[in-house]
Amino acid sequence: MRAVELIERKRDGGRLTADEIDFVVQGYVKGAIPDYQIASLLMAIVWRGMDAKETAALTASMVASGERLDLSRFGRVVDKHSTGGVGDKTTLVVAPLVAACGQPVAKMSGRGLGFSGGTLDKLESFAGYRVDLTIEEFLAQLERIGIVVTGQTKDLAPADGLLYALRDATGTVPAIPLIASSVMSKKIAAGAHAVVLDVKVGSGAFVKDLRAARALAQAMVHIGAAHGLAVTCELTDMGQPLGRAVGNSLEVAEAIATLRGEGPADLTELALLEGAEMLVRGKRARDARSARKRVAAAMADGSGLAKLRELVAAQGGDPRMVDDPSRLPRAPRVETLRASRTAFVAAIEADAVGEASVHLGAGREKKGDPIDHRTGIVLHAKVGDRVERGQPFADVHVGGRDGDAAAVDEVRRAFRWSAGRVRPRRLILGRIASR
Amino acid sequence: MRAVELIERKRDGGRLTADEIDFVVQGYVKGAIPDYQIASLLMAIVWRGMDAKETAALTASMVASGERLDLSRFGRVVDKHSTGGVGDKTTLVVAPLVAACGQPVAKMSGRGLGFSGGTLDKLESFAGYRVDLTIEEFLAQLERIGIVVTGQTKDLAPADGLLYALRDATGTVPAIPLIASSVMSKKIAAGAHAVVLDVKVGSGAFVKDLRAARALAQAMVHIGAAHGLAVTCELTDMGQPLGRAVGNSLEVAEAIATLRGEGPADLTELALLEGAEMLVRGKRARDARSARKRVAAAMADGSGLAKLRELVAAQGGDPRMVDDPSRLPRAPRVETLRASRTAFVAAIEADAVGEASVHLGAGREKKGDPIDHRTGIVLHAKVGDRVERGQPFADVHVGGRDGDAAAVDEVRRAFRWSAGRVRPRRLILGRIASR
Repeated sequence: MRAVELIERKRDGGRLTADEIDFVVQGYVKGAIPDYQIASLLMAIVWRGMDAKETAALTASMVASGERLDLSRFGRVVDKHSTGGVGDKTTLVVAPLVAACGQPVAKMSGRGLGFSGGTLDKLESFAGYRVDLTIEEFLAQLERIGIVVTGQTKDLAPADGLLYALRDATGTVPAIPLIASSVMSKKIAAGAHAVVLDVKVGSGAFVKDLRAARALAQAMVHIGAAHGLAVTCELTDMGQPLGRAVGNSLEVAEAIATLRGEGPADLTELALLEGAEMLVRGKRARDARSARKRVAAAMADGSGLAKLRELVAAQGGDPRMVDDPSRLPRAPRVETLRASRTAFVAAIEADAVGEASVHLGAGREKKGDPIDHRTGIVLHAKVGDRVERGQPFADVHVGGRDGDAAAVDEVRRAFRWSAGRVRPRRLILGRIASR
Repeated sequence: MRAVELIERKRDGGRLTADEIDFVVQGYVKGAIPDYQIASLLMAIVWRGMDAKETAALTASMVASGERLDLSRFGRVVDKHSTGGVGDKTTLVVAPLVAACGQPVAKMSGRGLGFSGGTLDKLESFAGYRVDLTIEEFLAQLERIGIVVTGQTKDLAPADGLLYALRDATGTVPAIPLIASSVMSKKIAAGAHAVVLDVKVGSGAFVKDLRAARALAQAMVHIGAAHGLAVTCELTDMGQPLGRAVGNSLEVAEAIATLRGEGPADLTELALLEGAEMLVRGKRARDARSARKRVAAAMADGSGLAKLRELVAAQGGDPRMVDDPSRLPRAPRVETLRASRTAFVAAIEADAVGEASVHLGAGREKKGDPIDHRTGIVLHAKVGDRVERGQPFADVHVGGRDGDAAAVDEVRRAFRWSAGRVRPRRLILGRIASR
């Protein structure tokens, strides 16, 4: 088998067999196939795509490149994943809620890049929180408290890490089979039996339109089917930021408020929806209705919040911050934006808000950049809301950087206004799920 | 400027500026841009193409990556080039003919790869012939005898050599802007004022159809225009091998016969056509008609053959082989193929004959493979010819290799037969030229 012939076949629109894909993936991991051949093959895949069989084979090869956790002694393990958006702190709410309902949550998360935040960065707002648990620590904590949220270990699906770094440098990130196999290989290697995926759609997401979102969801459901995983994809709106807070400790504070039952409507709704689905997929609930009731109860009785406190404490973070979010890192200054005339919010460009958060230091331009956990944006109005002249519509929490003024301006320009009424945006846009 | 942003733009169908292209090319040559980024950009170019401006800029950057010869003291220098085919020994005929007419010929040629032969390999059939002249030797010989045919030096358009090696390994060879800029950058760097190009079309050529051939020709004419070079592209048939001989010393013998006026009709016609065009482009003749007369005269009076003898002697080859081609390397055995019934030749698949020549050792599968100068194929019939039952239609000159029998079979199967008359193929399919 010669790599160049496989590249040529894909370039000409042909298909690769499972053996050929495995030859490429293991060859790359072992250093037998040079990165320049992988790079041109990746671009050919961006061009020509991969069918469901090829995508499942690619996923299998990435899983086979490393260890695969066996978590079956914990019963059915359900993972969750979001394709990433602006202000998406859902994991911080859902994971403790379902863990409080008796569903073990063993989650390996990522860091934020570009306008999209990362769960690990948010959790590190809790001073001392560790995201580098060993597999042993991971398993012991799951056993002890039923919840763990840490970083990806290098032993699981190492091919995915290598390929992702190469894709990032070669303009080959945006291809549905590559994205789908990257997400799913990590879930499969991490021992999940089912996974609830939030496919974000809109300006603040990687996927900009519903058609592409459906294709991505379909691809992930297919991969799941090929690997014996139940998969539910919720397609949700990322045309405006989720909730009101964007930025690490600001989002943590919002997640805590939501666990207290005092969160914004969209985040609360999404947490209940995803949490219920996780209980159903974990076979901890008979149906979506009873599952939702249990998740809502865990919100109402404070057991979800207690589970977050346990999680933070178990991983070395300061649990007092859970009870008193004013202890979380705070920006030195807040710039308040006020409406120049009375109007309805017609749009809040999620990507622009995300970019502003990067300029405030709350996100990173490129891997390895440090971030500022204090800074970010809090929206006082969302699409459809009416704001009176002179009233605040956003607070920008600035850290004293050169780009602060520009970021404040970006947030201002992210809002579009209308003199007439505007309908609020629909949050849940669709659902694609395996049986 | 970041390479990944340029890759993304090309991936998404955008255009690169001349500065951006130069950043990439010089960055690659200097090692500042890694080969994996170049590889994915090349595949994006195969996918999205490049417009005339981008292609001219790429050519300019490849020329600028090395030295550029100034040959203006020799008057107008005209180069010739063929995109490569099976049995294409035209250079061995044309170059001596036009040099004998007073048109200096300073040619840097390549080696054969796959089913397509290389002029250097053919010339090395003359025992001792050197293809590694230094620039100083190259210039001195041009001064002294008005003809030189040697290998590409590494000092001219080094970016082309680097990019070609990467394209070869990454499935990114077949893209018109990449092929056109590769050909033209070498011609421009080698000091040509005009170039006569033979764009081969058909199964035995890289370009399989006339539409693609026209696009390639047009691209090279555009590049010429952007760099002040007169360019003529002859589009010629490669649906069957050119002439009758395929294989190195067999082709040399055929070229010598043609210089004696005893060559096959198609090769003779092509040599006269290209030779005349070179004299016109070199402003050594008023028009194509008078140019053709002079070239034909150089064939008739033996001055072309004398010039080949001079060339071979000057570069260290054995000139006695020119006068007595039976001294050329000869295969130990000839397998003669005979018609099993009387019929007309309907087709001779050029690619199959080329592949057979590779299996006989006359060509190479991959760069650096040694070749056997003795072996090859001589066709006794071409498309349209009638062959009586029991008469020979091809001789296969075998060297005693494992693959010999298979190669003989390949040659046999390359012929298609018809009970009824078949029209001979048209050799000259079109012409695209600058003014």
